[in-house]
Amino acid sequence: MAAALVEPGGRVAAYDRVATPDGPAPDGTALDAEGLWRTLEALLGKLAADAGDPPLAGVGAGCGGPMTWPGAEVSPLNIPAWRGFPLRARLRDRYPGLPVRVHNDAICVAIGEHWRGAGRGRGNVLGMVVSTGVGGGLVLGGRLVDGASGNAGHIGHVVVDPDGPPCECGGRGCLEAVARGPGLVAWAQEQGWRPGSPDVTGIELAADARRGHPVAVAAMRRAGHAIGVAVASATHLCDLEVTAIGGGVSQAGALLFDPLEEAFRAHARMDFARRVRIVPAALGQTAGLIGAAALVFAGDRYWSAD
Amino acid sequence: MAAALVEPGGRVAAYDRVATPDGPAPDGTALDAEGLWRTLEALLGKLAADAGDPPLAGVGAGCGGPMTWPGAEVSPLNIPAWRGFPLRARLRDRYPGLPVRVHNDAICVAIGEHWRGAGRGRGNVLGMVVSTGVGGGLVLGGRLVDGASGNAGHIGHVVVDPDGPPCECGGRGCLEAVARGPGLVAWAQEQGWRPGSPDVTGIELAADARRGHPVAVAAMRRAGHAIGVAVASATHLCDLEVTAIGGGVSQAGALLFDPLEEAFRAHARMDFARRVRIVPAALGQTAGLIGAAALVFAGDRYWSAD
Repeated sequence: MAAALVEPGGRVAAYDRVATPDGPAPDGTALDAEGLWRTLEALLGKLAADAGDPPLAGVGAGCGGPMTWPGAEVSPLNIPAWRGFPLRARLRDRYPGLPVRVHNDAICVAIGEHWRGAGRGRGNVLGMVVSTGVGGGLVLGGRLVDGASGNAGHIGHVVVDPDGPPCECGGRGCLEAVARGPGLVAWAQEQGWRPGSPDVTGIELAADARRGHPVAVAAMRRAGHAIGVAVASATHLCDLEVTAIGGGVSQAGALLFDPLEEAFRAHARMDFARRVRIVPAALGQTAGLIGAAALVFAGDRYWSAD
Repeated sequence: MAAALVEPGGRVAAYDRVATPDGPAPDGTALDAEGLWRTLEALLGKLAADAGDPPLAGVGAGCGGPMTWPGAEVSPLNIPAWRGFPLRARLRDRYPGLPVRVHNDAICVAIGEHWRGAGRGRGNVLGMVVSTGVGGGLVLGGRLVDGASGNAGHIGHVVVDPDGPPCECGGRGCLEAVARGPGLVAWAQEQGWRPGSPDVTGIELAADARRGHPVAVAAMRRAGHAIGVAVASATHLCDLEVTAIGGGVSQAGALLFDPLEEAFRAHARMDFARRVRIVPAALGQTAGLIGAAALVFAGDRYWSAD
């Protein structure tokens, strides 16, 4: 879990983070919902105290999905301790009188990139995170698209190959099934890649690709192709100007972006679609925190609920 | 070309149409841009005169793409006589002082279905036309999505099979390449279907499917599967509530909608996506005219330009 104090202009004034174990807590007891909440409260309290407890305009939070929205009972896939945890209500109790707004973490990254990052000044932007999963958020006509239930932006479940690999969602051939870090690692291992560590992720695979390992390079090409197809579909459907891509897998740089661009150009042939720019995300690991702050500071564009 | 007088509530008070030949004009001269414009002017004049020249609130028009937007210099693919024809400017000259608004014809169908048809009362709707081409329009958060250049809604160029058939757009495996009427007719003929007429379209193919011709049924299954995959992708990206499908091919009814629903259910497995309803368009051939009227009567929702 990470927290930041963000200024109205988007500058991160203070930042801190703490690991969220999915097993037992450090003292040996099982990590339950309340234990995790206390860990978050402590992180928030320490961050504010170290900065001299400045006045707050509000509280924005990004959390892994799924969640109900805008009520934000959260059940983040990778944090089993929270299932239907009332995150927004708890933050409201903790910060009475302040606006409290919670959205999907990938949506917060997309908001951050639109507000102060690679999509700044553009009206129609897709922000993507290619990491353990593949998530995203969609800004159209200068405003965040929430959709019917706050779930718009799920670029990871755009179908890139109807006969492709099964996806965790129960479907088949989703972008996420092909391009998420663990999927790429599994594919590379099948092709004979032998990582140095057992806890390997897409970040190590991307690093090995940069060192020239042919299987790792091929894995990045595979991911890039799938992302290019999905972005072509999204561009045709939404008439985008910019797609900003972050997350660990994107650290492969040109080894990912070159095949991505090639696949995109092969499929996005209409004049309006060819104008979209596909760029690396600009804000790095604080993008989601800056986007969460924008839920408060720029709610007219990014927060349609109450 | 079709024209209607539409009341503020969306009722069609008067309607007329005239064929738009793509060869020579009826008098033997080549159909040029001005000849086609005079045909349209005559249609509009007669329609209004027959109705007693009622006062007009404005003029809305849907035209085949591509076009510049919102300026609406139109170059409809199927009407070679108009290339860069200044349709909006001409209508403004013809109706001085009135608002004149022009958008893509498939977008007007989608607007019509949202305003008064199958998507009425819903905030997040995809309207589709499956006909000679596959077009569409997107309403999110209760407002039409225009995108960067007025081209949002191109569901026909969502990729449903990256290795699929080449598309007229220059890409490969677009929904339109698989599911448009002429593509289905060509595929069915390859499979041994022998239509009764040489000028056969998807409408005859759909009719033959209803009569039980196995190749025609298989063609509808092929189209339905491709549409289901594309709608699953669109639903994940945009968190839709309703997808309304019209156009000649949709006249196959359950022969199209059953395999469509089956493919959609196989690929749209996330909870939020399973809630979308996929339904036949409700307004029939006047949907686009009603939507064009909504550009004027409900411009706050459907017209973001000036």
